[in-house]
Amino acid sequence: MRSRLNLFCLAALSASIANAKITDKRPDIILFMVDDMGWQDTSLPFASDTTAYNRMFRTPNMERLAASGMKFTQAYACAISSPTRCSLITGANNARHRVTNWTLQRDKSTDDSMLGVILPEWNWNGVAQSGEVNNTYIGRSFVDLLRQSGYHTIHVGKAHFGAINTPGENPAHWGFETNIAGHAGGGLATYLSENNYGHRPDGSAYSLLAIPGLEKYWGSGVFATEALTQEALKEIDRAVAYEQPYFLYMSHYAVHIPIDKDMRFYNDYIDRGYSPKEAAYASLVEGMDKSLGDILDKVEQSGRADRTIIIFMSDNGGLASQPEWRDGELYTQNYPLRSGKGSLLEGGIREPMIVCWPGVTTPGSECNDYTMIEDFYPTILEMADVDFVPDADKPIDGFSFVPMLRGEPMPDPEREIVWNFPNIWGNEGPGINLNTALRRGQYKLIYNYVTGEKELYDIPADISETTNLATQLPEVTAFMSKRLGQRLRDMDAQRPVDAATGEPFPWPDEID
Amino acid sequence: MRSRLNLFCLAALSASIANAKITDKRPDIILFMVDDMGWQDTSLPFASDTTAYNRMFRTPNMERLAASGMKFTQAYACAISSPTRCSLITGANNARHRVTNWTLQRDKSTDDSMLGVILPEWNWNGVAQSGEVNNTYIGRSFVDLLRQSGYHTIHVGKAHFGAINTPGENPAHWGFETNIAGHAGGGLATYLSENNYGHRPDGSAYSLLAIPGLEKYWGSGVFATEALTQEALKEIDRAVAYEQPYFLYMSHYAVHIPIDKDMRFYNDYIDRGYSPKEAAYASLVEGMDKSLGDILDKVEQSGRADRTIIIFMSDNGGLASQPEWRDGELYTQNYPLRSGKGSLLEGGIREPMIVCWPGVTTPGSECNDYTMIEDFYPTILEMADVDFVPDADKPIDGFSFVPMLRGEPMPDPEREIVWNFPNIWGNEGPGINLNTALRRGQYKLIYNYVTGEKELYDIPADISETTNLATQLPEVTAFMSKRLGQRLRDMDAQRPVDAATGEPFPWPDEID
Repeated sequence: MRSRLNLFCLAALSASIANAKITDKRPDIILFMVDDMGWQDTSLPFASDTTAYNRMFRTPNMERLAASGMKFTQAYACAISSPTRCSLITGANNARHRVTNWTLQRDKSTDDSMLGVILPEWNWNGVAQSGEVNNTYIGRSFVDLLRQSGYHTIHVGKAHFGAINTPGENPAHWGFETNIAGHAGGGLATYLSENNYGHRPDGSAYSLLAIPGLEKYWGSGVFATEALTQEALKEIDRAVAYEQPYFLYMSHYAVHIPIDKDMRFYNDYIDRGYSPKEAAYASLVEGMDKSLGDILDKVEQSGRADRTIIIFMSDNGGLASQPEWRDGELYTQNYPLRSGKGSLLEGGIREPMIVCWPGVTTPGSECNDYTMIEDFYPTILEMADVDFVPDADKPIDGFSFVPMLRGEPMPDPEREIVWNFPNIWGNEGPGINLNTALRRGQYKLIYNYVTGEKELYDIPADISETTNLATQLPEVTAFMSKRLGQRLRDMDAQRPVDAATGEPFPWPDEID
Repeated sequence: MRSRLNLFCLAALSASIANAKITDKRPDIILFMVDDMGWQDTSLPFASDTTAYNRMFRTPNMERLAASGMKFTQAYACAISSPTRCSLITGANNARHRVTNWTLQRDKSTDDSMLGVILPEWNWNGVAQSGEVNNTYIGRSFVDLLRQSGYHTIHVGKAHFGAINTPGENPAHWGFETNIAGHAGGGLATYLSENNYGHRPDGSAYSLLAIPGLEKYWGSGVFATEALTQEALKEIDRAVAYEQPYFLYMSHYAVHIPIDKDMRFYNDYIDRGYSPKEAAYASLVEGMDKSLGDILDKVEQSGRADRTIIIFMSDNGGLASQPEWRDGELYTQNYPLRSGKGSLLEGGIREPMIVCWPGVTTPGSECNDYTMIEDFYPTILEMADVDFVPDADKPIDGFSFVPMLRGEPMPDPEREIVWNFPNIWGNEGPGINLNTALRRGQYKLIYNYVTGEKELYDIPADISETTNLATQLPEVTAFMSKRLGQRLRDMDAQRPVDAATGEPFPWPDEID
């Protein structure tokens, strides 16, 4: 028989929580996460100049939030949702947790195939905190740590941490005490209540991406973005009543495809001359922004605005590779960034991020240092005054950006960020599929495992990544290759195998 | 600023869980809890002889469970639901947690009033794990410890741990990762899907006791007992898929009032000559028993029956004080036990309890030692191989009955069980209102705070509590009074105040 689990420590922890009881005035924290929103899908300029896209979208509440907080112009996430969400919840880099493509069904890879390439057996079942399911990375959730420390924890919207019928699919397994509409699905069948968000009239789902838990809005005419918002507002009221600090993960399904028309806003864009596709997308974005505004209003009405931290983020770049959903030339929808979702070019990984922490962030300030999605883990725990030591087998790759919120420089100017995407996502385009990348200082190296091609960009000088410096700066390329190869090996990253030889394709520092 | 919470220990704990990963074959545990079910509301005899009530009810699955496990003939709970549920989840005795009457609305006592008596400010907001809500006992849930140790934890049905808009109302706050239909309510508006379990056609609740979360069964003709069962069966499938051990708290709203007719069974009882009220009650009981059978079948089909522990329990005695719901003479419906729900006589506190632990309990065995509801806490943790040390400010009053499951005698033959009910529940009857009691060995003392009356019974010799030995055995009465007074003071119990003097009524050992 296995030895007993020892919960002495838990008892000690909970005693310290009890002692903290009377003075628990730690901040409420709201993480407002948008799905598939590009860096330019907003009227708030994140580039040095206002762009045509900024003029196309209407997001007054993002502007309002930025005016009272700090805007991050180089905030990174992964190129698609699952890697980002899994890094967020576990604090592990995507190369480490190996959820490198998107997850949905258990034991089913979502990779496309390519002749001559054998893809790795990545963690297609996602991440979990417990259980023994194969192809799963076991991590520990910062939300669970918040909860253990006395926070009330709320999940609203998209989860996408683990595949169907695995422990990770359920936000409750990650320490969320309330879950509205979160499950294994990383997208949604439809935003339309007329279609019961993906359910037949008899209540059965007609899609694996049917949104669960919104039955009361079926047939009501309420767009999914609004339904989730109304639920979130009720949860804030409830959280305030509980007399605990709370963490709300407001994780919108918007602005993921299908780009349904949010009819509260759509016709106005049509009237202003937008094409139907672009009007629909702009309406999705504005509906998301209204949600942000409603939540900001609610926080102000709750009387706790001065102790509420709001974090705005997106999970990957805007979709720029599917002409059926967007107009305009392919791969331009995140301009001045190049390419979009799925790409390791900036258009795929740079996100609109804003943080407002009353008393800490300077209103209207801007941070031009870079951050990565796994940084949210230690940052939020620091915000909540929760100290922790990671398990040896579950290291945290992120770094707290609290110093930057205080206006201090990035603690380590040589900080390295790794992306690993040894998969075939499906869509084609610049920087998409079978590659890995390193950001360090001003440079970013992108390496394609199969072609061996290397791209080196000076990001601050060339935000659009038009000039590949790889041959021009061979020493930098070699150094970046070495660092990337080292980091990938250190994290036991996966890479594709050459079917012709049966050998893995080289690491970036094994090839010139 | 308060000092940081230290989560070093949590990290250590979670490391040990990870190490245990490969061999986690701990048992699945199902606690099948029935509401307001009396000791005689079953065809399974718990008294020494088969009674007329045993012949009136049909519970073949309880018989089946008892045939494969151990039947407890002296299993105690509190006299009403909230004290029992709060003891179950926190392991604290009712005198300690002070949730001594039933809870529903925040900051609203449910006490009736009595001229000349000032009632204590008991914990009418229930219990919680965290938060700073007044009139709340802060405990730590055994379910949370199970969860932390790697169990998947499921709540189906009635919760009733805390008042509306307090942290304790939400089963997720107690470590349940799945919650179906559990909330602050300790009863239900109706079992009938035709009435949407208490919701209007527009979806709004017409009662605080409307059952939440069963929308998909609205208008379906499915009785609430069956709807909860179907949900529980699905959750078992899911839990098995998760490849974790699981804890299922199958907490039926049955057989609480309103005694709606379960039409799957009702007419058969009518045909057999039962009165409509008794036929309805028998149908409720049989529907509950069918649920047990369906769960037993599911466990067998899951292939994990040999590692699944099933515990059957009720939360208080059968209702015997409301002629609008039951026929027959008042206070006789638990015969040979006297009185019923709300009473500290045996009819109010003795429960039908069965435990089947394959490989541990002898099939068809019987335990005649006594247990109390707070014993479930350390027992279930021991079953799950979770060792723990309670916080100093949250002592566990229960004792594990695992030795008794192994067929060993009760470890402490002088074990003391305390009930404290310094409230006015409302209904009248023998042993109901404003009293406290002690069971120790063969004797039980009941003391009425306001009248000063003492009743002493030799329980094994006089199961119907017909002969008050208080004057006949003055030394026993004095000793029991002293022990009860001591225990009440040790647990900082509450008692009513005499309005005429402004002084509390005496403790039992302060009066002859």
